[in-house]
Amino acid sequence: MTTAPVCVLGLGLIGGSVLQAAVRGGRIAWGYNRSADAIAGSAEAGYDTDTDLTAVLTRAAEAGALIVIAVPMPAVDAILAAIAEHAPNNALTDVVSVKAEVAAAVSRWGLSSRYVGGHPMAGTDQSGWSAADPELFRDAVWVVGVDDGVDPQVWREVASLALDCGSVVVPVESGEHDRAVARISHLPHLLAETLALVGASGSPLALSLAAGSFRDGTRVASTAPALVRAMCEANSVALTDALDEALDVLTRAREELATDGSTRTLVTAGHRARTLYEEHQRFDITGIEPGDDQWREKFGSAGRKGGVIRQIRSASPG
Amino acid sequence: MTTAPVCVLGLGLIGGSVLQAAVRGGRIAWGYNRSADAIAGSAEAGYDTDTDLTAVLTRAAEAGALIVIAVPMPAVDAILAAIAEHAPNNALTDVVSVKAEVAAAVSRWGLSSRYVGGHPMAGTDQSGWSAADPELFRDAVWVVGVDDGVDPQVWREVASLALDCGSVVVPVESGEHDRAVARISHLPHLLAETLALVGASGSPLALSLAAGSFRDGTRVASTAPALVRAMCEANSVALTDALDEALDVLTRAREELATDGSTRTLVTAGHRARTLYEEHQRFDITGIEPGDDQWREKFGSAGRKGGVIRQIRSASPG
Repeated sequence: MTTAPVCVLGLGLIGGSVLQAAVRGGRIAWGYNRSADAIAGSAEAGYDTDTDLTAVLTRAAEAGALIVIAVPMPAVDAILAAIAEHAPNNALTDVVSVKAEVAAAVSRWGLSSRYVGGHPMAGTDQSGWSAADPELFRDAVWVVGVDDGVDPQVWREVASLALDCGSVVVPVESGEHDRAVARISHLPHLLAETLALVGASGSPLALSLAAGSFRDGTRVASTAPALVRAMCEANSVALTDALDEALDVLTRAREELATDGSTRTLVTAGHRARTLYEEHQRFDITGIEPGDDQWREKFGSAGRKGGVIRQIRSASPG
Repeated sequence: MTTAPVCVLGLGLIGGSVLQAAVRGGRIAWGYNRSADAIAGSAEAGYDTDTDLTAVLTRAAEAGALIVIAVPMPAVDAILAAIAEHAPNNALTDVVSVKAEVAAAVSRWGLSSRYVGGHPMAGTDQSGWSAADPELFRDAVWVVGVDDGVDPQVWREVASLALDCGSVVVPVESGEHDRAVARISHLPHLLAETLALVGASGSPLALSLAAGSFRDGTRVASTAPALVRAMCEANSVALTDALDEALDVLTRAREELATDGSTRTLVTAGHRARTLYEEHQRFDITGIEPGDDQWREKFGSAGRKGGVIRQIRSASPG
């Protein structure tokens, strides 16, 4: 089962890296990308890539491949339409940075029974196939969804792909995933954009003086705007909540600074929070197998507490 | 002149690095620190350090040393009191992260005529002598003040120290410096603290999923709170303005996200701003020497536009 072939749809930074990591992890894998130019050199480098979506999906259906959707959220619907037509019975996952909206789209196309959402927590501020790296997911966290109705066999296949790519697996329900990444991935992007903007509104002097704190604080603002927008806008409800929390913290800090000349409350709490993050310990989830009684609830509960899965038993023949 | 000895008061990360860089740059240099424990090992490593402030300043007075104040803002006044008593005629600079408040304190102690403010734009999230590094200022920007009344000979001495430490010099007036660093150094700290706080207010799951954007966006939140507070609170007026600008940007972004589900305005402008920063070109300031007619105004104007000084002529014998 863990040797199921892999079919990756969309070969940008993440999808390209999945294809390369899957091959390095010993899988038979091939990929589709809409534009040939964007993946120039991929065939010469030995990767099995194609721009014919129908052909790629037909091959996936015949081979019983795990299909990985790796296009930005705005392109997901069109890809699902093709899957529903050419490979409706294949195991299906995705690497899109939000989960509830993808799950809803999958449901609209009637593909839920064979779908398990995924999200590798890795990336760079680069984009495209040329930035892809088979080591991108090494020691990263790869979220695998444990929503109601998930099929344990498909779950094994998706988790196995994540492990073969070098990641550890965190089992999470879609809504919880989206609320968490709003805080630790989407909010960081909006704060980085804000800092870049306020910095550059100064004179050229401000940019001349900018050093490490500005450089690191604005790093992800160099990500292509279309990718940042696709990610943030697909998670607008949870991101609005996180943004409100940040605005509340900053507004209180502004009042304390303007009134008492102090930054005590924010700086004390912020330092404590960063220390919590630095000291955060993941623990290994063991003793639960997909398909066990209440396996989804047990996995979800362990993931919520910081648990990760480092290995998964091969499925018993059935 | 460029071989004047250097006396560094305060041997934390920045002061310790100045002492080490000055020695590596060929200067005779010694330093004072209040606590012997904090600079354990400095003497064995060959550095000339002492905990007797009076002795250190008496030696500086006798040797005609350039005195460098390298204590946090809250300790500046006590250091100035000792300088006024033991070495009132020495050339004097500082490496504190705000300039107007230091200049005001220097003025209260009657030491303005021999003072030129400084600020090397370098640091790490570590602190203390143990984190000091003689290469910390290599290729960094070192602000040297061009406020009204600055003595050109003292200016040469301060700029020469910065160059000997491997930095380039940016000539800036105190108020402009403080407004610029509010944007590109102090605001980044408050945003990092805020992001750390909102991230950690999620479940342990949020910290489990945190990857590069959160790690980099919160890096400076691991700086010792006392240092962050000293820096931010000494620049409260300019920092409040920068914070208001950031709050305005974020509040508009929140409205656009909640109302239209869009992040277009912020993401487009933030990406453009980060690109401006990445493409920002410093240029060399040439043809102006300290003491020339309107040298301060010319230096200040060039610094405002992104100019840096890479070398300075030795003073003619006077």
